[in-house]
Amino acid sequence: MTFKSLKKKINSKKINVGIVGLGYVGLPLAILLAKKGVNVYGFDINKKKIKMLQNQKSYIERINNFDIKILSKKSEVSHSFENISKCDVILICVPTPLKNNNQPDLSCIKKTFSLIKNFLCEDQILILESTSYPGTTREEFVNNLNKKFKLGNNFFIGFSSERINPGSNENSIHNVPKVVGGFSSNCSILVSAFYNLFFQKVVKAKSLEAAEFSKLLENIYRSVNIGFINEMKFIADKMGLDIFEIIRLAKTKPYGFIAYNPGPAIGGHCIPIDPHYLYWKAKKIGITSNFIKIASQTNSKVTNFIESKILKSLKEKNIKINKAKILILGMAYKKNIDDMRESGSVILLKKLLKKNIKNIYWADPHIKKIQFYNKTISNNKINITSKILPSFDIVILMTDHKNFNYSMIERYSKFIIDCRGKFSLSSKIIRA
Amino acid sequence: MTFKSLKKKINSKKINVGIVGLGYVGLPLAILLAKKGVNVYGFDINKKKIKMLQNQKSYIERINNFDIKILSKKSEVSHSFENISKCDVILICVPTPLKNNNQPDLSCIKKTFSLIKNFLCEDQILILESTSYPGTTREEFVNNLNKKFKLGNNFFIGFSSERINPGSNENSIHNVPKVVGGFSSNCSILVSAFYNLFFQKVVKAKSLEAAEFSKLLENIYRSVNIGFINEMKFIADKMGLDIFEIIRLAKTKPYGFIAYNPGPAIGGHCIPIDPHYLYWKAKKIGITSNFIKIASQTNSKVTNFIESKILKSLKEKNIKINKAKILILGMAYKKNIDDMRESGSVILLKKLLKKNIKNIYWADPHIKKIQFYNKTISNNKINITSKILPSFDIVILMTDHKNFNYSMIERYSKFIIDCRGKFSLSSKIIRA
Repeated sequence: MTFKSLKKKINSKKINVGIVGLGYVGLPLAILLAKKGVNVYGFDINKKKIKMLQNQKSYIERINNFDIKILSKKSEVSHSFENISKCDVILICVPTPLKNNNQPDLSCIKKTFSLIKNFLCEDQILILESTSYPGTTREEFVNNLNKKFKLGNNFFIGFSSERINPGSNENSIHNVPKVVGGFSSNCSILVSAFYNLFFQKVVKAKSLEAAEFSKLLENIYRSVNIGFINEMKFIADKMGLDIFEIIRLAKTKPYGFIAYNPGPAIGGHCIPIDPHYLYWKAKKIGITSNFIKIASQTNSKVTNFIESKILKSLKEKNIKINKAKILILGMAYKKNIDDMRESGSVILLKKLLKKNIKNIYWADPHIKKIQFYNKTISNNKINITSKILPSFDIVILMTDHKNFNYSMIERYSKFIIDCRGKFSLSSKIIRA
Repeated sequence: MTFKSLKKKINSKKINVGIVGLGYVGLPLAILLAKKGVNVYGFDINKKKIKMLQNQKSYIERINNFDIKILSKKSEVSHSFENISKCDVILICVPTPLKNNNQPDLSCIKKTFSLIKNFLCEDQILILESTSYPGTTREEFVNNLNKKFKLGNNFFIGFSSERINPGSNENSIHNVPKVVGGFSSNCSILVSAFYNLFFQKVVKAKSLEAAEFSKLLENIYRSVNIGFINEMKFIADKMGLDIFEIIRLAKTKPYGFIAYNPGPAIGGHCIPIDPHYLYWKAKKIGITSNFIKIASQTNSKVTNFIESKILKSLKEKNIKINKAKILILGMAYKKNIDDMRESGSVILLKKLLKKNIKNIYWADPHIKKIQFYNKTISNNKINITSKILPSFDIVILMTDHKNFNYSMIERYSKFIIDCRGKFSLSSKIIRA
């Protein structure tokens, strides 16, 4: 098949699309494609997920079973990879986490390549959607396939990062412009044509690396701005000032200022992780990214700051550490979602346990149970009631879910430490 | 006079307002007040400025003589300060620069206080508009006047920072919300009532210090984001990537990302200076603001980066340093204005001279002549023509004034180093 006929095939939508990795990125994408009438082959090494999909059940809170049913009509899902050979387009949506030393962990990408490579054949388009450092697509795919294929002629490679905003746009990813990069001009044209079928706007990058870098820039920008405002919080606090009040004033400026709120930690799978990918790559070529380093260090200090506020408050109230009864509001890393990855609440929990604070309870409308090494605490979930609230010495607002009844919390809590700027300050409410 | 009758007087607009410091902040403010029919007493220790105003001439490019004429009808300007005693409201708009060691230089504020203190009397409202660290208004005015007056009862003190955006809103400052802080609730009410006469929106801060901090936060945010994107530029450049292309891609994200463009330096009177005010104050209370430090360091590295690109280009072209002929486009620190304070072009000029590059010319439609220690270069202003452009070995775009004829520059220049992302890259155009 020529480049032209492959392009025609794409435009006819009579294509089979393989999606490797059916997590928070791959699953919404699979649903989008199925809804647009395209045949999907789904792959995941997690047999539980495959089984749930086969039973038409969702495993992501904001993706409902109805959409999974639609998907099942247009898809075949499997934990083995033979069907890769049937695909015209293969999208790789696997995790790119960090190793313990904060270095990029490309093992999922590498494993994916080893699982699919024998099923790759001519006239396919392979696209990486996983966030990684500039050079990844070239190093992991181009360099490993340029002997087997004539890249840009009978096999095509691209990069197009996901832009999922958890808790916000899982069901409308097609509205977010899709940045695409190709190994060659032909690759770029085909990859664009493919995404154009599903996304409102496709933006062509001039290179694979520019596309890869742009995704990191987006997330590092957030990490840096959150780190910056957290540092400003530390300074304001030491001056006896409320950073949320200062932000309220500054953001009345109609140009040149964007308000970021400080939070108890940066959580999730993007902001705490992605910056280290660029940090590592820059270090390799001799540049230290001071902004990434300082942002990461500052953001990781926030839970210490909250801990110190808790300990100080207990001391001022003459409450013994081992008798203190504490309620944490919100275990998810972000409001209105069920995701606890890198959540500041979990980090804080561990710190408090180390300090011998044992009577810790938690409430979160989105989280049924937490997997925690301390069984007691895993089970200490409560429902917030006017009766139970006064029993806690300190109530700490960590995640500002909209389902919390804030007026009840304010009225019946003895003392609140507010990490989200939700409450007005008073004799029984402080910030952290 | 009671608080109530002073409030009534303000609301009747039958007030005399003193403005100390008739620079880029005080002058537009004086014009705004005069246009609204209020009597203005203007004060400045610079006799030249006073003389020009008396002759109905402007000394700021974007403020025209017509507005100065309007002002003159409703004002009396002087370099002596007796008329302070006639004022109901006194606005202090004096510079707050840095000392050589980057520490706050409050000498203008202190000098102002010493010049006016003997003319201060009951029932006046004193407001600081100069940007400074949290605590300045209290330390310099409250603490020096709380014996002479019953503050909040027979004398009132406030802070309300200017939000001038040079080259953009000198003639529409009333459209930008005005943040005001007061020493006491009464102060806050009177200061708000005063600005409400002239500004579309007044935002009350809960304290003097919160208002002071909020202004710094606005400008530090900019410094940090410019520093951050400059660092990203260094990394992208080392990877052989174009940061402007990466930003073009990233900014297609409709949420969570704001594009800042890297530039040759941060110039002007705010962004390079204000952050050091908070840095110094935070240091005094035991906190190092890493973000301010890193941003400042990174931003000051950019001219070195540009210099190295120039030297590298000359080497590649086999052009001897002492024979090289170079044209700098833009001497102002920012597009479309005539302000050269802290301009990167001036810093670059000095660096190039030190490297023995002597044939340096410059063009700037907003700047007639530059005051520079090297007389030859001061006089080396050229008009850009298709004839003269090919005579330069390198043309460096430093300030992207809209009046430059970019297509002509692109066509007739032999080689361009583009620090603003204005041109598409080609064999004769590189970025720096």
